[in-house]
Amino acid sequence: MTRIDDLPIRDELRGQSPYGAPQLDVAVRLNTNENPYPLPEPLVARIAERVAVAARQLNRYPDRDAVELRTELAAYLSRTAGHRVGTGQVWAANGSNEVIQQLLQTFGGPGRSAIGFEPSYSMHALISRGTGTGWISGPRRDDFTVDVAAATREIAARRPEVVFVCSPNNPTGTAVAADTVVALYEAAQAARPSLVVVDEAYGEFSHRPSLLPLIEGRPNLVLTRTMSKAFGAAGLRLGYLAADPAVVDAVQLVRLPYHLSAVTQATALAALEYTDTLLGYVEQLKAERDRQVAELRAIGYEVTESDANFVQFGRFADSHAAWQAILDRGVLVRDNGVPGRLRVSTGTPAENDAFLDAARTVYKEHQLSEESV
Amino acid sequence: MTRIDDLPIRDELRGQSPYGAPQLDVAVRLNTNENPYPLPEPLVARIAERVAVAARQLNRYPDRDAVELRTELAAYLSRTAGHRVGTGQVWAANGSNEVIQQLLQTFGGPGRSAIGFEPSYSMHALISRGTGTGWISGPRRDDFTVDVAAATREIAARRPEVVFVCSPNNPTGTAVAADTVVALYEAAQAARPSLVVVDEAYGEFSHRPSLLPLIEGRPNLVLTRTMSKAFGAAGLRLGYLAADPAVVDAVQLVRLPYHLSAVTQATALAALEYTDTLLGYVEQLKAERDRQVAELRAIGYEVTESDANFVQFGRFADSHAAWQAILDRGVLVRDNGVPGRLRVSTGTPAENDAFLDAARTVYKEHQLSEESV
Repeated sequence: MTRIDDLPIRDELRGQSPYGAPQLDVAVRLNTNENPYPLPEPLVARIAERVAVAARQLNRYPDRDAVELRTELAAYLSRTAGHRVGTGQVWAANGSNEVIQQLLQTFGGPGRSAIGFEPSYSMHALISRGTGTGWISGPRRDDFTVDVAAATREIAARRPEVVFVCSPNNPTGTAVAADTVVALYEAAQAARPSLVVVDEAYGEFSHRPSLLPLIEGRPNLVLTRTMSKAFGAAGLRLGYLAADPAVVDAVQLVRLPYHLSAVTQATALAALEYTDTLLGYVEQLKAERDRQVAELRAIGYEVTESDANFVQFGRFADSHAAWQAILDRGVLVRDNGVPGRLRVSTGTPAENDAFLDAARTVYKEHQLSEESV
Repeated sequence: MTRIDDLPIRDELRGQSPYGAPQLDVAVRLNTNENPYPLPEPLVARIAERVAVAARQLNRYPDRDAVELRTELAAYLSRTAGHRVGTGQVWAANGSNEVIQQLLQTFGGPGRSAIGFEPSYSMHALISRGTGTGWISGPRRDDFTVDVAAATREIAARRPEVVFVCSPNNPTGTAVAADTVVALYEAAQAARPSLVVVDEAYGEFSHRPSLLPLIEGRPNLVLTRTMSKAFGAAGLRLGYLAADPAVVDAVQLVRLPYHLSAVTQATALAALEYTDTLLGYVEQLKAERDRQVAELRAIGYEVTESDANFVQFGRFADSHAAWQAILDRGVLVRDNGVPGRLRVSTGTPAENDAFLDAARTVYKEHQLSEESV
């Protein structure tokens, strides 16, 4: 039998494992920050209707530039994110992962480097590596906020071509203040002309307004978003960016032609028709997320402030053992590799209750004792 | 206004334009090798039905490994391509372009090179560049067949890590004999362990059997396919590969997690239920393609033998002027940059008649005169 390492793969891939959370069959799955609310039935019907229309022309290539979809995404951002953007400022791809990959192919790549402030969304580092971009692990404070002074020192010293700022930050939940992003942008531009990518995948769940207005007058600032979380459409794989139109033009140089299927475009357009309904679910989830934070603190856990649809909590003597103990009680949470911490997605009230019961039960046995903190 | 070149993009992207055929509003569009037959209505209904089922779980991430879809694709290949393959030997992505990109990220990339025998599918070179893989333009005979001796000399001299063989070849239509592929594979392995990618996007339209059986005992041989052409689903963006299971394992190291949406998987599965109907259209298109070849020759054109759903014809003194003259008669064909040639897709009988009328009219004025050949 041929094994991976028998093949002429790149040396840096040897011995690696693919990224991905375990897909386990558990009653309560709170490990991938999915939205727990299925799409409402009228939207399901509308998707079927719009997809049928698209399917009648499926023998033709899709609109390569996805103009109708980008127009609706721009309208959505203009209405909800505090800054007016036009179609030419928005670009869409198969998940924000593909958006990020296109940005790195354009602005990163061999001989260039990207920085992120870790722990953060691990795909930033993985896609950097996948595109031949050097990865710099930047610092974060013990409370998981970004230390502007330390971060700008690192940017000045390493001069990366791409800077990732994840806000709200995955897996910690921490939002980044607008003036922090501005300071990082200015430090990055002072070091060399470089792209700053603000990953706002969880933006709709934040207590703070969107960072979108910061793109004004900053042609090297890009905001990325996704329909996976707020729109309850992780299965759709629709990510997008907003930036100066020149950035949208630039990614055309590397995007695979016709990357976004007609079926994806039709489904996304249907979901955008139901924006208000779906944002109603977001409000419910924000309230549940705040309840998770409060109840975990009441149990005694140390909980990181969350602006996302998930909560980081701890501290555990052995976070993997705690993960397993919670799983043994029928609840799948995420062991993200942040020492002493686990991450739980915000589910339905019933799912959150099941999780909180499990968290209560395992607290005594797995919590790091005071004296060892 | 910010322009692309004001941004900190990679130097090699400066001054480039994005790939893509002009999307013009013309009555008869025979420029992108689309299948002219819309999906049958029962299939459209089935797609809507399967997508509605998928949409009810759209808040969840899709099956990351697309097991059901890969199983059905494997069954399709096993039944139609002369060689039995299992789920573990098949991988699917958003168009064969993404399959090729994943292969190049795994087996090509910075410090490595890929070769293709040109003129051939231009995305092989473009995706190589997009992944930092050096590109080697290999030779092809004047009649557009691959010269095995010249090709193997080039492989021995340049020692590329990836070898592309497009059969039937786009844009020329030329099929490659199985023993040629074997010779190229052996030359490639003799030079260094390297991946040979047989791009069979137009395989179903060939007079010859599929090259799929060649993967047996050749772990570094990959066959790529697409549902864009034979399945009449260019708008779906579903490409796939068949190879040793180790190759499928290897591309997991670079694939973006959850790259293939639940909606894409559902639509592709619906289309696979209608394989026999759709392959019926392929038979009609093959007959029409053969008619295009015969009638173009009868007009007096020099026509390259075609095993695809398109035909290369010429020779023109100025192929762009000829392209424009045909467009002026309401038929959009492709100016692929092969000197003195144009490429026309096989359309419906009525579309092909319209094209042949136009080709007849422009023949005298644009055909290269005998003495200048």
